[in-house]
This record gives sequence, structure tokens and C-alpha cells, in this order.
Amino acid sequence: IGWKGSPQFTSEDRSFKVKGRIQTDLGHVSTPRGLNDRGLGLSNEVRRIRLGGEGKLGSGFGYKLELELSDNAVDLVDTFVTWEKGPWQVAIGNQNQFQSLDELVGDTTGSVMERAAFTDAFGFERRMGIALQYRKGDVLLQAGVFSDDIDALADSSDGPDGGDENDSFSLDGRAVYAPKAGGTQLHFGGSAHLRELNRLAENPVRYRQRPYLHSSNSRVLATPALRIERELHYGLELAAVRGRWHAAAEAHWLEAIGPGPNRRFFGGYAELGVYLTDDSRPYRSGIFGGAKPSSPLGKNGIGAVQINLRYDYLDLDSGPIRGGRQNAVIAGLVWTPIEYLRFNLNHAYLAYDGAAIAAAGRRDYGLHVTGARMELDF
Amino acid sequence: IGWKGSPQFTSEDRSFKVKGRIQTDLGHVSTPRGLNDRGLGLSNEVRRIRLGGEGKLGSGFGYKLELELSDNAVDLVDTFVTWEKGPWQVAIGNQNQFQSLDELVGDTTGSVMERAAFTDAFGFERRMGIALQYRKGDVLLQAGVFSDDIDALADSSDGPDGGDENDSFSLDGRAVYAPKAGGTQLHFGGSAHLRELNRLAENPVRYRQRPYLHSSNSRVLATPALRIERELHYGLELAAVRGRWHAAAEAHWLEAIGPGPNRRFFGGYAELGVYLTDDSRPYRSGIFGGAKPSSPLGKNGIGAVQINLRYDYLDLDSGPIRGGRQNAVIAGLVWTPIEYLRFNLNHAYLAYDGAAIAAAGRRDYGLHVTGARMELDF
Amino acid sequence: IGWKGSPQFTSEDRSFKVKGRIQTDLGHVSTPRGLNDRGLGLSNEVRRIRLGGEGKLGSGFGYKLELELSDNAVDLVDTFVTWEKGPWQVAIGNQNQFQSLDELVGDTTGSVMERAAFTDAFGFERRMGIALQYRKGDVLLQAGVFSDDIDALADSSDGPDGGDENDSFSLDGRAVYAPKAGGTQLHFGGSAHLRELNRLAENPVRYRQRPYLHSSNSRVLATPALRIERELHYGLELAAVRGRWHAAAEAHWLEAIGPGPNRRFFGGYAELGVYLTDDSRPYRSGIFGGAKPSSPLGKNGIGAVQINLRYDYLDLDSGPIRGGRQNAVIAGLVWTPIEYLRFNLNHAYLAYDGAAIAAAGRRDYGLHVTGARMELDF
Repeated sequence: IGWKGSPQFTSEDRSFKVKGRIQTDLGHVSTPRGLNDRGLGLSNEVRRIRLGGEGKLGSGFGYKLELELSDNAVDLVDTFVTWEKGPWQVAIGNQNQFQSLDELVGDTTGSVMERAAFTDAFGFERRMGIALQYRKGDVLLQAGVFSDDIDALADSSDGPDGGDENDSFSLDGRAVYAPKAGGTQLHFGGSAHLRELNRLAENPVRYRQRPYLHSSNSRVLATPALRIERELHYGLELAAVRGRWHAAAEAHWLEAIGPGPNRRFFGGYAELGVYLTDDSRPYRSGIFGGAKPSSPLGKNGIGAVQINLRYDYLDLDSGPIRGGRQNAVIAGLVWTPIEYLRFNLNHAYLAYDGAAIAAAGRRDYGLHVTGARMELDF
Repeated sequence: IGWKGSPQFTSEDRSFKVKGRIQTDLGHVSTPRGLNDRGLGLSNEVRRIRLGGEGKLGSGFGYKLELELSDNAVDLVDTFVTWEKGPWQVAIGNQNQFQSLDELVGDTTGSVMERAAFTDAFGFERRMGIALQYRKGDVLLQAGVFSDDIDALADSSDGPDGGDENDSFSLDGRAVYAPKAGGTQLHFGGSAHLRELNRLAENPVRYRQRPYLHSSNSRVLATPALRIERELHYGLELAAVRGRWHAAAEAHWLEAIGPGPNRRFFGGYAELGVYLTDDSRPYRSGIFGGAKPSSPLGKNGIGAVQINLRYDYLDLDSGPIRGGRQNAVIAGLVWTPIEYLRFNLNHAYLAYDGAAIAAAGRRDYGLHVTGARMELDF
Repeated sequence: IGWKGSPQFTSEDRSFKVKGRIQTDLGHVSTPRGLNDRGLGLSNEVRRIRLGGEGKLGSGFGYKLELELSDNAVDLVDTFVTWEKGPWQVAIGNQNQFQSLDELVGDTTGSVMERAAFTDAFGFERRMGIALQYRKGDVLLQAGVFSDDIDALADSSDGPDGGDENDSFSLDGRAVYAPKAGGTQLHFGGSAHLRELNRLAENPVRYRQRPYLHSSNSRVLATPALRIERELHYGLELAAVRGRWHAAAEAHWLEAIGPGPNRRFFGGYAELGVYLTDDSRPYRSGIFGGAKPSSPLGKNGIGAVQINLRYDYLDLDSGPIRGGRQNAVIAGLVWTPIEYLRFNLNHAYLAYDGAAIAAAGRRDYGLHVTGARMELDF
């Protein structure tokens, strides 16, 4: 019996652990003069609640099963069965499609409260599928075939929303090279994704994004409804960790292909972070992990304290399509008093060009956003 | 590894336990001549199902995370993180606002099947917030700031129901003095609560109550829809436990403040209970707990058997507002064959003045209610 | 601490175990010329996700509590409390009504992916109730009184769907004689069921069935909406297990009683199965159980491999009511690499007479169905 926030039971090549997560948010979005949107201002919510388990069954088989309560509905998050043999791993079930470094980093181990704007705007989500992974030394290769998210697949209505009529699928791949150079952990990654919407193309698509905080439902950036038949997106990832410092940057392009000229949208971020305490940002298996404070609160320390600064860019303009652009600067203070518990305090300034919500007729303005999060994750 | 219905794992200052609850009800409400409401009569339901976990993370941090399935939807119940230091405790998350003794007593440790009529009629529910507690010796002080329940906060619609437009909040406080006088445990408590509805005031409010049983959805008492901007409510609590006997009484006033004259509603109850077996009603931390039978069934005994008698009053009349009045007498027999499992058999007579549902034109009549519940809680 | 996919904790007469289940399906239904139904063709879904626990509380009391996510909603599956004394068992809560052998066999221990067509067509589901069981030697007797499924009971709407207006109930019984003759385990069973719909009779009923796969929502067989006041159904069960071989067969009749002439529908199946590996289909307590491979994958073996062949018949025609008839042959290959994990590959040919969905005007045609399932269950 080990302990990872909850007891982890191990017997020969089998193991089991209950998993849980609580994230609660409080935030404020400033309201420019002339902007009448009551979704801005003060807001608070339970961001995520998860309950589940993970374990190993022996003979290389393992599983993860999580229910998430978020946005007033029950979702499935990571729900899959894996099989490992040497450097190979197969995973079948609901899972991420290795969309980008920021999307793959756990939502309780990120550097700031919310992920880069492009990850929401481009509709990243877990989907049903089968994924193959090869990991050896500094190299990680991932590829998979996916259909749609399991809520969409379970929809029993008729018409394009019907789960049994949903024949969309995607091919996804990601490659990571993560060498150690001196005391510096480096990360070079790239991913490419092709999704055929097939019958889903009957539903128009809007690419859009909130003003950083999830507790506000206003989409300040938004394209009009577009007819999309195919999505091709690809990105580049760079990251480095050295002692208390880390840096990361990504660029991601989305080509939304449909009748008429194609649209090409773009997002990316660059960030720099440093621990004020004697801690380091964990990195393994091609993503950042969660810090275990070297001096936890109540045990000769105050836990781990990290400061992060991120620049976050999103461009939803393409030819005549005006979805707007965001230039954001986000400062984050992350306090991890003990392992599995974090407090996140963020301030962001988001400068918009061509926002979807007008402020007294102006579409170019800035929003100040302040957010606080408590997050428990075991 | 201890055992509290499910195993409780403890390691240094950390612990973990799975929690579960099953409550199933069967009941009957008599139908006065001329009252055509098919929601009365025989009914049965699964009252509550819960699944979750609670634990301690070390360094004074702890958590509770529960999903509840009730009324055909998934809710969150107690879902919070706590931090304790000496007599102080801070709790952040979804929780009760120390509304009243009867509301705070667990639903599987109450003296009768359902709580006092005023607790539903006045809309008590768990809400997101931060609570501070001081407990030392005989004194317990609780205070907090709360927003709304997390389902309301997660609502993604536009308009007054939208979670991101919800700027309601409340300030809540409760004080308890619980000395031991000879062999008698005494409880003197009081609480006060101020809630600003702000934008929620755009939705009219009805105060109403079922005919005791939850499996009936008929609201025999109900005010018309009222415009309310602010709710001020406050109550007094008295209780005593001595050997097999206990007594409890509460009075609670609600001032519903809005345009026009304010409305003042009132509810309260008084109860007396006694164990026929050699057991006593547990009391700790300002509330009643669950009995552990001194002689469980199958182990030289039949478990614990308790008889309770409660008078339950609710007055939803105020000036020209006629929501009706209830004078109820409830007799309860609680059998606890073994710890964590109870059977509850209740009979109630509810006398109404000015009921919202007319029986052949009459609004003053009485209902006989019989209910049975099986409840498992660990 | 034992191990049953997850750890099973035992202490004196108490025990506890977390339960989980993941089933994911991929399938294809052929589309006859002229049949325009996009619900056929390729489809995939998460068939079932369950999370819960089961345990014993001591003194003969036990419980099972499971949440299921299926069809985009949270359901309760087995959620009951039991009490055992010698050969007797009482169970209160949400449970099966011993409808038929195939319905009672767990969905991860069946011989093919989906149960016999009549079990869905006749509306078998778990319902709230109290069940009494007597089991001694080769004899198993089961009887119970049930109301409705707990989602229906929790419905808070007014009218015939309202949970508090739902006064339907059923009386159900089943008898099994399961002697061992030489090395052959035999199973002779029969069950009878009478359900009074009472107010539910205001809602018309359709008896219908999918084309084998659950991931398709098209009901190829379907009666028109019928006014039903009472359902009387009864069935016969035969089964045998000898070494690697097993056989099973059932016949089930449904008399749907309402105004006008009664309708009598019928369904049944016969199956034969054999393990290619040195395994045997477990049988206990009146149903088939799940195989524990004698030589698991990675431990000197490849797990258990079983081939099953089933003939599945459904007749929804009765007098002037034409719901259609199905003659199906289903071949299944079940691979159980290790205990608690299975892969199921099925091919079926369904011949329809009088299908509810016409193909270029024809209602007599055949469908080829291929399905694959991964199922984890502990």
C-alpha cells in the first residue's frame, strides 16, 4: 500500500487507486465602457469534479475510468484500457489525441489556470479511439485513429447530431524528442491531425473562445458559423526545464476546409516560469507533471511557490472571415502547499482586435481578468 | 486500516475512505374527498444515492467529494477542501451554510424521515463558498461567504439563470454553546443569514413545501410567485441529550425583502425521542450524529430502536400573501440493526390552513401520511 | 486483502470492493438497397461505464451501489441492500426481476455481445422492489414485488410520466432446478411475471428492437403504439455445461393485455458454445458467470478463447398487429486474455419479415451485422 493522495494498492503486477479532483474558481473580468454583457464581471463556479479509479490488471493491462461533473453534466474523461509491452503501449477508449503539449498537460499541473486560447478555440477534446505509443530513451511517438467524443456518440436523436449517424473520424500523430543537455531537459515536439467531419459537416462550426476564465460564458472571440468538411491542424512544441526554471512555447495552425476558400487560423503561446522555492517543474513522458514540494507546508516549509508568465496569441481572422485576434499576457502565481493540492492566482490582460462582442461600437479593446483557483487532484 | 462501513485507510496524518449512501422510500398520502391530485396516494422512489470519498492529505488538509443522484439528476453534495489548525477550520467548496440544526444533521441520522418543513420551504441547500469555523471546548463559531449552488453556477444559458450572470451572495453565521450539565448534554444555538439575490431577483420566488414525503411532488403549501431582492433569515436552536432521551426545538424566521411590503414567514419544530434499547443519540461538533448500536443484530441484540415524536409548524402567510399554514405531528420509529444501516417508519398528521391545493373548494383540511425508508450510509 | 480486479478488503464478516466497468463498441450494419437510414452503417459508442462499490456490513447485511453512464445519461444499475440468513436472502432496492436467464447473466459474461432480442423488445429493465430468494442445494426460488425503474419514479413532471403518479407494479417469480448429472451441470428454469401498468396505461407502448448492435438506434422491428393495461409474460430456460462445452435455450411469451383483443408476442434463442482453450463456462446461483482463464496471457498462455453460435428469434406479429419477425444467426468469438477483461467479435445475419423500416418498399430483407467490443469489468 503506497500513498498518492489516496492509497495505492499493489500486489504483484496489479494495482488500484481511487482518483478524485476538485477545482473551484473565482474570477473577475473587467467591463469596458459601453459593453453590455452580464457574463463578464464577477463569476465563480466549480470548474471540474472528478471521481474514478485507475489500476493495473496484470500481464501488461491497465485502465483508467473517470467521471467528470462539469458544466452541469456528467462527462467521461480518461476512460480507457491500455496494454503495455516493452516500449509499446496500446490504448482503447476515450482519450486525448496528442493535440498539443498544453492540451496534454493535466489541468491541475499547468502553469496558469486555463490552457492556451487555441486549445479551446480549435475544439480540442477527448474522443473515442485507439492509440499506439512507442517510447524509448528520448523518443516518444504517438499515433491513433479516433471517432468523436462519447457524448456525441451516445446522442440518440435523429439527424446530424445522432450518435449512430456520426461517421466523423480523425488520424492523429505526435512525435517528441526530449534529450537532456547538461542539466537541461529539452523538449522538441510536433503533431499533425486530419479530421473528416463527414455527416457532421451538416452542422455549421464556430471557432470561438472565452475571455480566459471558464466561469464566464461570453465568447469574446468567435467566427461566424462556417461550413466545414475537414480539419487539418498541426503544431510545433518547444520546452525546457533547468533547475527552478522552465520555458515552453507552441505554435498551432488550423486549416478549416470546406466549400469556398479554406480558412487558416493560428494560435500559440510562449511562457517562462520559475520556482521561488527549491522545486523544479517535473517533466516525463512528453509532458509536464505535477510538483511534489520539497518542503511541504507544516513540514519545515511553505510548500512550492512558482511564478509563471505567459504570452498567449490567437488569430481567428482569415480572409473575409473576421473572428478576431487576441494578444494576451497572463501572470500566474501557483502555490502548492502539499502534494495534490494547489492554489492558483492569475492576472491577465487580453487585447482584442475585432472582438465578436462590441463595446459601444468598438471591437478593439482590452479586458483585465483576475482569477483564483483551488485545485485538489489525486 | 480501520472500518467505517467501508475500510478507512490511515497512514501518518493521511487517510482515505470511500463513501456511499442508499435511501429508498415507500409512502402513502391520504386524499381528502374532492382533492384531485394524483401526486398523492401511494408513491415510492430512491430518495438519495451517493458515491464519493473523503480523506486527509496531511499538514491539516482534508477533503470530501460526493456525487449524489437524486431527482433524476446528478448533484454535488459535500465537495470541499478543508484546512485545520488547532481550533480553526477553513472550508472551501460546496457546503451547507450552517442554516439550522435540523438542516445540518445528516439525512441518515435525523430523528424522522424528512427535515422540518421550514428547511425546504425556505430553500436551504448547499452552496459554493468559504467557511471559517472556531471550535474549542463547549463553543462553536461558524461564519462564511457563499454564492449559489453549483448547478446554478454551472448553468450556461443567457439571462437571469446563467451561471456567469449569477452575482447573488450571502453572509452566514452560527454560534453554538454546548455545555455538559451533570449527565446532560445541552445545545444552545443561533444563526443569522443575509442573502443578496442581485440579478437573481429577476426570477420570481415561490416558498412551498411537500406533504412531508419527498416521493410526492405536490406542494400543498405554496406562496404565489414573489419578487424578492434580499432574504434575511435567522433561527434559534435548543437541544438536550440525557441517556436514552433527547429533545430538540428550533424556531426560524425568514424575511423576504422586495418591492412592496416585506413578507415574514416562520417555521419551527419541537421533538422528543427515546431509545427503547440501551443506546443514546450521539452529539458532537454542534450536531447530532448517527447511532452505533450497543447490541447489533446478530451479535446478542436486535440493534438500536428509537421512538421520536415531533411537532412541525410552518407559516407561509404574511399580510395579504396566503401561502398557508401547517401544524404537523410526526411519529417516527427508527431501527438501526447494525451501524450504517437504518429502517425508518413514520406516520404524520398534517393539518393545513389555507393549502395551495383545494379539496372540493376547502383549503383547510388534514392529511395522513405514512412513510417507510431504508437507509444505508457509510 | 484479496484481489478481484480491484482490491477486496475483508475484515471479520465485513468486506468492501470498488467496482468498475468499461465497454466500448465498434460495429457495422449492412444497408440493403433502397433503405435510407443513416443509423445503419458504421457506428461506435461507449456501451456502458460503471463505477460503484459493493460490500458486506456484517450480521448478514450487504449492499451493491453502481452508477452507470450509458446513452448520455447517468443511471443506477444494481443498487440494493441485502440480508442473508441461511438459504434465504432479502434484497431491497433497484434490481432485476429475474426476467430470464439471458437477462440475468451479466453483460460482460454473456456468450455474445448483446442479449436475446426479446429481452429488449419486451422492455426488461431493473426496477425498484423487494425480492426474496431461497437457495439450497440444486434449487433456487425467487419472488418479488416491484414498482418501476428509478428514473421513472424520480420524474418530477405532472401527468402520466410523473414519478409520484406512477402506481404501476409487478409480481415476479422464478424457479430453477440445477442438478449435476455426471460431469454435466444442468439448468431447468422458468419464470412468470404479471405487471399492472395502472396510470402508466395512459402512455401508449411500442415493442421494438434494434438490429442487434446497440450503437445503432434504428428500430428495425417495431409494433405500432399500443394501449396496454397489463403485461403477463413467462418463459422457460434450459442450459447445460460440460467441460469446454455449454448449451442454452429459452422461450419467452409476452401477453400484452389492453382494450380490444390481446396481443401475444414471442421470443427465444438457442445457443451452443465451446472453449478452444482449456476453460469452462462458470455456472452458479442460477446464472452463467465470467471465465477466469486457466492460462492467462503473459503467464504461459493466451487466455481463454470461446466460440459461440446463437439462433435468436423474435415475433412481434399478433393478429392484425404487424411488428415484424426476426430470424437471426449470431456467431461470437470471445477472447478473455486475463480475468476481468474480454474482447468480443460477433457477426450476425438477421432475416426480417415485416420490418418497420422499408427498403425500397420491401419489408422482408436481411441485414449483415459485424460488431466488436472491448469489456473491462471488476
